[in-house]
Amino acid sequence: MLKLVIGNKNYSSWSMRPWVLLRQTGIEFEEVKVRFDSFAPDSGFKRALARLKVAGKVPVLLDGDLAIWDTLSIAEYLAEAFPEKALWPSERKARARARSLCAEMHSGFSALRSHCPMNIEAQLPDIGALVWRDQAAVRHDVARLSELWTDALSQHGGPMLFGEFSVADAYFAPVCMRLHTYRLPLSEPVAAYVERVRALPGVQAWIQDALAENDFLDFEEPYRVQR
Amino acid sequence: MLKLVIGNKNYSSWSMRPWVLLRQTGIEFEEVKVRFDSFAPDSGFKRALARLKVAGKVPVLLDGDLAIWDTLSIAEYLAEAFPEKALWPSERKARARARSLCAEMHSGFSALRSHCPMNIEAQLPDIGALVWRDQAAVRHDVARLSELWTDALSQHGGPMLFGEFSVADAYFAPVCMRLHTYRLPLSEPVAAYVERVRALPGVQAWIQDALAENDFLDFEEPYRVQR
Repeated sequence: MLKLVIGNKNYSSWSMRPWVLLRQTGIEFEEVKVRFDSFAPDSGFKRALARLKVAGKVPVLLDGDLAIWDTLSIAEYLAEAFPEKALWPSERKARARARSLCAEMHSGFSALRSHCPMNIEAQLPDIGALVWRDQAAVRHDVARLSELWTDALSQHGGPMLFGEFSVADAYFAPVCMRLHTYRLPLSEPVAAYVERVRALPGVQAWIQDALAENDFLDFEEPYRVQR
Repeated sequence: MLKLVIGNKNYSSWSMRPWVLLRQTGIEFEEVKVRFDSFAPDSGFKRALARLKVAGKVPVLLDGDLAIWDTLSIAEYLAEAFPEKALWPSERKARARARSLCAEMHSGFSALRSHCPMNIEAQLPDIGALVWRDQAAVRHDVARLSELWTDALSQHGGPMLFGEFSVADAYFAPVCMRLHTYRLPLSEPVAAYVERVRALPGVQAWIQDALAENDFLDFEEPYRVQR
């Protein structure tokens, strides 16, 4: 069976993407969780990954002796292995655009990612208000997200970005978590999309696991001293 | 015909990837070069891209009215559109690994990218020696590249990372330019791979165009005041 190596569910936004993709589309897999104790070379995290014989980051998909790392590569592998799941939009142009959105997410939106780290159990509207007031780059990132999402939703009619659920929605699921935690200002259609993503069964399953985790990691908590 | 929107050839490492991929595999395309004057919102560069109705970055592939941005998305689009070109390795596991390497490049190696920006016409061995002495993160990036390349070359027997030329080699071509410009220390097999990439006709064509460009841009030149 496929195995997916992930980090802490409350914090690991990259782990969330392929996990939600697998769960939401009903592809069977075994979860291998490696707790974030620290990212130092001698940490339990790095040593556990070394034992699994994978590079020092999560997520990693294991298919027998094949280790596939990085979320985009995992998504392409799953799309090829499970064509009946239609993980990418079936229409050629929509598929190209979905991949463009995912690739832009993969290397971009750094201000949003650094100022609003994923923290599913936290409610940080006051921090969000400060970030919004002071960080023009975050406002710019959210404007770009809004443009991309509004465009895709209006072209394809929703409820997900390209009609039915696809890799693109899994890719933006952690972003929806951040927008919710920090309560950043959103247009009505964008806010409604965030709520639809949060309500997906695959996303709800991840959120429930994250809430049950009870594992406060100070190096992932720039805004809280305790829960 | 396909159109590829690119920036300055001497400096634009992201533009180089799909251009080399197209040229090396003989896929016909028209080049649309948009000079980097600056990246300010009112720059000629940003205004030209807006006229082309694409987001504010290069490269962009235009196929009729479809604009595809970001190198990974462009690569997947071309691989689907030209299956006879075998842009990805045909073997399933090798293809997964090739995609993992490209995805890691897409979001990683930030120290090498920031300290050793692509500058094809420049020869900067002294800068490279200082960077190598002072920047542990650059040494770490090069060690990781070396590990990935050595592993792929030994598994697939060369001459390219996965045997024949593939997206992965196009993806690392700008890295080979940097390693050469800054003369960073490399193992013999890695240095030999860099030279093989530099000798590819598609890469040579790009290099010759870059050398003929004669367009010194100070905001792309942290290490030179003139040519």
